[in-house]
Amino acid sequence: MSTRTVELVEIDERRLLRRLDDLAQRGALPGGGLYRPLYSSAWASAMELVSAWLKEGELFVRRDAVGNVWGRVEGSRGGRAVVTGSHIDTVRGGGALDGALGVVAGIEAVASLWERYGRPTRILECVAICEEEGSRFNTNFWGSRAIADRLEPNEAERVRDPDGVTLADGMRAVGLDPSNLASAVRRDIDMFVELHIEQGPILEDHGPRLGVVTTIAGSAHLEIVVRGQADHAGAMAMTRRRDAMLGAATMALAIADVATKMGHPAVATIGTIALEPAQVNVVPGVARFTVDTRHSEPARRTELITQIGDACRTVARERGLDVEIRSLRDRPPVTLSPRVADVLRRACFAAGIPPRDMTSGAGHDAQVLSAAANVGMLFVPSIGGRSHCPEEATAAEDVVLGTRALATALHELAYQA
Amino acid sequence: MSTRTVELVEIDERRLLRRLDDLAQRGALPGGGLYRPLYSSAWASAMELVSAWLKEGELFVRRDAVGNVWGRVEGSRGGRAVVTGSHIDTVRGGGALDGALGVVAGIEAVASLWERYGRPTRILECVAICEEEGSRFNTNFWGSRAIADRLEPNEAERVRDPDGVTLADGMRAVGLDPSNLASAVRRDIDMFVELHIEQGPILEDHGPRLGVVTTIAGSAHLEIVVRGQADHAGAMAMTRRRDAMLGAATMALAIADVATKMGHPAVATIGTIALEPAQVNVVPGVARFTVDTRHSEPARRTELITQIGDACRTVARERGLDVEIRSLRDRPPVTLSPRVADVLRRACFAAGIPPRDMTSGAGHDAQVLSAAANVGMLFVPSIGGRSHCPEEATAAEDVVLGTRALATALHELAYQA
Repeated sequence: MSTRTVELVEIDERRLLRRLDDLAQRGALPGGGLYRPLYSSAWASAMELVSAWLKEGELFVRRDAVGNVWGRVEGSRGGRAVVTGSHIDTVRGGGALDGALGVVAGIEAVASLWERYGRPTRILECVAICEEEGSRFNTNFWGSRAIADRLEPNEAERVRDPDGVTLADGMRAVGLDPSNLASAVRRDIDMFVELHIEQGPILEDHGPRLGVVTTIAGSAHLEIVVRGQADHAGAMAMTRRRDAMLGAATMALAIADVATKMGHPAVATIGTIALEPAQVNVVPGVARFTVDTRHSEPARRTELITQIGDACRTVARERGLDVEIRSLRDRPPVTLSPRVADVLRRACFAAGIPPRDMTSGAGHDAQVLSAAANVGMLFVPSIGGRSHCPEEATAAEDVVLGTRALATALHELAYQA
Repeated sequence: MSTRTVELVEIDERRLLRRLDDLAQRGALPGGGLYRPLYSSAWASAMELVSAWLKEGELFVRRDAVGNVWGRVEGSRGGRAVVTGSHIDTVRGGGALDGALGVVAGIEAVASLWERYGRPTRILECVAICEEEGSRFNTNFWGSRAIADRLEPNEAERVRDPDGVTLADGMRAVGLDPSNLASAVRRDIDMFVELHIEQGPILEDHGPRLGVVTTIAGSAHLEIVVRGQADHAGAMAMTRRRDAMLGAATMALAIADVATKMGHPAVATIGTIALEPAQVNVVPGVARFTVDTRHSEPARRTELITQIGDACRTVARERGLDVEIRSLRDRPPVTLSPRVADVLRRACFAAGIPPRDMTSGAGHDAQVLSAAANVGMLFVPSIGGRSHCPEEATAAEDVVLGTRALATALHELAYQA
């Protein structure tokens, strides 16, 4: 890391915090928490707000083919762009900061730089990415994959939401043309910097208040189908059953045990389960559940997946059940740009914080965009390590600190290069 | 039991077996198994078939206010009626005999008696009861409770199916008038006799081929809600989680263990489970599951329910979770009529089979009708003890044997009394 020093950039703190509150109203659920699924009315309403803020900042505003919204300041030297941003969509019942912080802080950082420092040497952009969470359609990273030219053939026509609506129909519902997807590809991005909440407890428990991400853990999603025998809940003796639910329960505990024993940063989560026939008075004949498992080291990650499979097969054998294990999705770990990490570290030092180098257990647009650009990520603490829930929160001073550090890094990248 | 001997009644075996096959086509699912939910088109089609058979047998056919279909032969002496039958609806993915056997065998027995012996002294009826399983609307025993005057106030307007359709709207869809429910009540039934498959493995494992039910185990349905903390599946450390799914899994295993340790006829089944927010990449914050638990002895049954609650609370405490346990339904054990059981035993002896006295783990219309009549039940073996599944089956010779024993009992009750 170079010892070059930089000055911490000022931002409009009140505007930043007010906008985060405003965005949290778009898709707010009556019972608490947010839901802004891709191409929904809540999503469209959030994107309108983003567009209005970009116009207010006198940026050139553009919506691309998948609905990513871009705000741009031309650079005096042209060339490849420096970009910041994050995603606008949320999980069901999610919080106000996952994705939203990176969008609002990105707009704040770029607008502040433009207001205070005028035209940059490099093209400077911020982007609200349309989708990252996979919370509506059976796919994810739709926005960043469109930018990085990683969409699959006919994906828009093939992928559906639980109501059977295709991505293509979802696009049409918000005025987008699914025949035009290739125009979303950007081959002219040099740097992408994303500010995000940590979504875990490390910065809160051990400090400091800023983290620079060096690696994003690869997530593997498995579907596990347990087949036993459906029987009458009143008439079939306990000792004669081949109960798929009890098999799945035993497997779930064994899977969690495998990840816990391997230790940080190994994780494994059973997030969904469905039984068949799903009647109160019938012994379940089939149980299907998903496992989300992650590790930042490729070899350990492979070992984790292998141990999970072995544990399930052992349980199935002991209980006279059949088990099928299928990979739904397999994203390898991604190493981010050491050069951008250096810039981010200098910005943290400018804020008086020697940052922690971190692995992100969560997936991010940054990992997809790293195929197309030099990518860096900055973390601020999550209170209680909570995320993907209504209680997701970060102290206001940490939101401001992170946004100033982001603006400072963008200043070095776009004005001093 | 009296030592009076009776003669085994003849029936039309081929007609009986053909009709069982025909009825199994109504509501057959493409992937195997049946689904005839109350007031569906499959249900209506099955009821049409039943009506046609009753007319073919020259019985007086009538559909009552809830859609139970009755076939009647007047008795020379009038008085209170002797009735046989069972339910026409099925669980989702159920088999061809649960309920259907009692309906088809009941029609066969009454029609054979009418054909061979002419007018009985007592009124003799068979009934296809509209609903017993609770597989569409959030209620069950709808047909037998209407007969026994056990419907709840406004139940038809209040109870809905998963699509939000009320029972009253379901009735209107098949031409029934929900304002007319009281007319379904029967206060003139003396005896009700039901032939049913055992749905468990006892007759198959230990013999003989006929069982006389003395008690129906009471079922209690509980809903258990486990509350933990929703978190990011990638970022929240395994050791910091309050995972509602892992809590529910541990409880499910503990509940099964309680029933297994108490021994036959104690059972406990987790038939449904739902997680929130039910996303692959979110640690579940809430898990809701149902427990169906049964025992034929009231004191042991209470102990079983208490132990299940204690087990869940212990798991919740150990895992830092909250748990709520709610009773969805609580049906006490029912003792059937010793007098009708005697008649059924004589009929079994007439068939050359000294029957086994049995407890039914499964619930039946008979238990509801026992509030309004003297009730008896006859069991035939289930192959492999299987029921509520596509593989539900009984050997053809046992179907014939059971139907002849039923006809013989009805002969004694309606012709010799």
